Amino acid sequence: MEQRILRVVVLGAGFGGLTFCQHFRHSNAVIYLVDRQNHHLFQPLLYQVATAGLSAPEIAQPVRAVFHDRPDVHVHLANVEDIRPATKELVVDGETHSYDYLVFALGGRTSYFGHPEWEQFAPGLKSLDDAQRIRRGLLFAFEHAENTRDKDERRRLMTIVIVGGGPTGVELAGACSELTRQVLKRDFKRIDPAQARVILIEGSPRLLGQFTEPLSQNARETLEGMGVEVRTGTHVKNITQGRVELPDGSVIEAENILWAAGVAASPLTAKLGVPIDRAGRVLVNPDLSIPGRPEVFVIGDAAFLLDKDGQIVPGVSPAAMQEAKHVAQIITSELDGNPERPPFDYWDKGSMATIGRSAAVAKVGAFEMTGFLAWIAWLLIHLIFLVGFRNKVAVLWQWFYSYVTYRRGARIITGLKWPAK
Amino acid sequence: MEQRILRVVVLGAGFGGLTFCQHFRHSNAVIYLVDRQNHHLFQPLLYQVATAGLSAPEIAQPVRAVFHDRPDVHVHLANVEDIRPATKELVVDGETHSYDYLVFALGGRTSYFGHPEWEQFAPGLKSLDDAQRIRRGLLFAFEHAENTRDKDERRRLMTIVIVGGGPTGVELAGACSELTRQVLKRDFKRIDPAQARVILIEGSPRLLGQFTEPLSQNARETLEGMGVEVRTGTHVKNITQGRVELPDGSVIEAENILWAAGVAASPLTAKLGVPIDRAGRVLVNPDLSIPGRPEVFVIGDAAFLLDKDGQIVPGVSPAAMQEAKHVAQIITSELDGNPERPPFDYWDKGSMATIGRSAAVAKVGAFEMTGFLAWIAWLLIHLIFLVGFRNKVAVLWQWFYSYVTYRRGARIITGLKWPAK
Repeated sequence: MEQRILRVVVLGAGFGGLTFCQHFRHSNAVIYLVDRQNHHLFQPLLYQVATAGLSAPEIAQPVRAVFHDRPDVHVHLANVEDIRPATKELVVDGETHSYDYLVFALGGRTSYFGHPEWEQFAPGLKSLDDAQRIRRGLLFAFEHAENTRDKDERRRLMTIVIVGGGPTGVELAGACSELTRQVLKRDFKRIDPAQARVILIEGSPRLLGQFTEPLSQNARETLEGMGVEVRTGTHVKNITQGRVELPDGSVIEAENILWAAGVAASPLTAKLGVPIDRAGRVLVNPDLSIPGRPEVFVIGDAAFLLDKDGQIVPGVSPAAMQEAKHVAQIITSELDGNPERPPFDYWDKGSMATIGRSAAVAKVGAFEMTGFLAWIAWLLIHLIFLVGFRNKVAVLWQWFYSYVTYRRGARIITGLKWPAK
Repeated sequence: MEQRILRVVVLGAGFGGLTFCQHFRHSNAVIYLVDRQNHHLFQPLLYQVATAGLSAPEIAQPVRAVFHDRPDVHVHLANVEDIRPATKELVVDGETHSYDYLVFALGGRTSYFGHPEWEQFAPGLKSLDDAQRIRRGLLFAFEHAENTRDKDERRRLMTIVIVGGGPTGVELAGACSELTRQVLKRDFKRIDPAQARVILIEGSPRLLGQFTEPLSQNARETLEGMGVEVRTGTHVKNITQGRVELPDGSVIEAENILWAAGVAASPLTAKLGVPIDRAGRVLVNPDLSIPGRPEVFVIGDAAFLLDKDGQIVPGVSPAAMQEAKHVAQIITSELDGNPERPPFDYWDKGSMATIGRSAAVAKVGAFEMTGFLAWIAWLLIHLIFLVGFRNKVAVLWQWFYSYVTYRRGARIITGLKWPAK
């Protein structure tokens, strides 16, 4: 009897989905990779697109191109509308498809803690479109400031508020400081972009909560040395057009308000019919499958599980990639007749956050680094991870060029006609 | 008595406006350079952005960055709303400014020969936004074709019509052929992008009317060898959504219809109060000033004049740049007390059109070239002209990479969510 070819459907072409496809290959299976974008995004560098350090194609790669030599991987640009675990089906752009295995890797989206109305005033940073929207907003603000004669208005236009003091917020604050103090400074005649205010707001008592106290302190001091106003222990009470309201009643008027405070899983996790946490993450089994559905796996930012030390596996790309490899191994074993499923074991390779063009903080196990050395480590690791990205050389060149000349090539405004509003 | 500092207002940061600012510098004058885009565009390569050969920032340069070391050049991102030659004033974003000299270099826009309603169905190619719109349309069409099961629909999605057989149309047709036959071919599983139809329609009897008959014939044969259907002597009767109607009553159904047939000057030429031709171009004096207003000059695509052989000075970038230098000289002389104004003398350096990744046609005086040699010449000349563009190395790398691998890095769809319609 001939064996039926099994259909493995992968939702999402982020680090998790892409890595799964790269590590799963079986003569009895084909992969359908579904994403609503045609590109895989190198998210760790997205903040550089938002702050005009890199251009969009430099950190993105067409998914089809990644798998053009894999006849068993079918790339499908489409929206996932529904998932029906009971019948092993999903609805994609109005059409129903069946699956034998489902790998849910849709990642996260920006969350506004129950205030979705803030999104229009304070864009988050998850996609290339987000990054280009932020870049447009930042660049337009300085153009408006150059044109206006109203002093208060100019001050408002030149104020940038970043909400959220995690790695993304810290990276954005550092990059905004550099953009205004180093890059734009030389381009304007009437205004001095170096007078721009960059304000970083964090609700908890310190920045970079997942790092140790000394690293948080180092990040704070480095940012303050770059002219960033750091306000920890400060929650945001309300956000409206160009205004951030704080609990003490004070208001910061800022043309650009960037949101780096919250991430939630894709709303599609609710379709899986299993328990999810407040952030929408699925409480997965130790093997990353979902309760009662051994053929459905959730990996990456949409999964919630504890590692063997009882720590939450963080929503970072190395975790998503390790999970992807684990699931690829489980399905391969199963197709080869071995139903044993070992639990996922997270290997924390360390984490780092970059603060500017020559500073970062990093920890690898108990080992910690700060400053220029940490930045060099950050640079090397990101370049190594960019392998496979055809843009590696272009990115390297761009960085080198920026570093040497302090000019930036991606300061191009498109997509909206002047004026911006 | 102290001399008043004169205000030279330059409208447009294209090749004409930019070149003027680079060549005009006088201790008694300041320049205000007004454009509604924040970047100068290397238009000759715009078709490569539209066909995913280059990414947008590679052919654009922030205008402020060009003049950051020129304290006498003020860059103003703004819309020009009105020009009042009688009072030497102009209205920019609601504010009235006066000028002592005005250099009108606003260039051209796509013209639909009295059918502005065609624009929504058949985008032209003048700005980065245009190019990105076309690229999105082309890439989305193949994604839709991959997803559909309807054979006729698939055929329609994979048909590209280009209206206009001048250099832009020929370049677009060649690049579309390569995109479908070489680049996308390897990325899709169900469809074969090499089966795409690329149809080039030209109203006159031959392509590239400004070249000689043998060069036109060579261009036609090269395109046909690349699988492009060339229809000369064919006018377009009507364009609606996805449909091109021809005079013989036949209809071509095509998801992508690109317009490369007509260019008209900026509508602001009408504000100058002097005679303009049907395409909106100003009939300038031999010194490039306008009748009765010696302080107003029109250069580039918005100017109409004959050279000393009675030929129309063509709307190409070398002409705009030569005109810019001429006007810079006239104003400099005048400020130095020499009111003599020599007539503009156009030096035709030759012209060329590229057809694909290894073919072009070129003429320099009576000397003509075709094929690979002409393409190498085209490549060298464009690289030389890109000098000053910081992206030179990146572009070179990108081209080299495309040439060697036939893959393209700019195939990133952003700005619109899937599905496109």
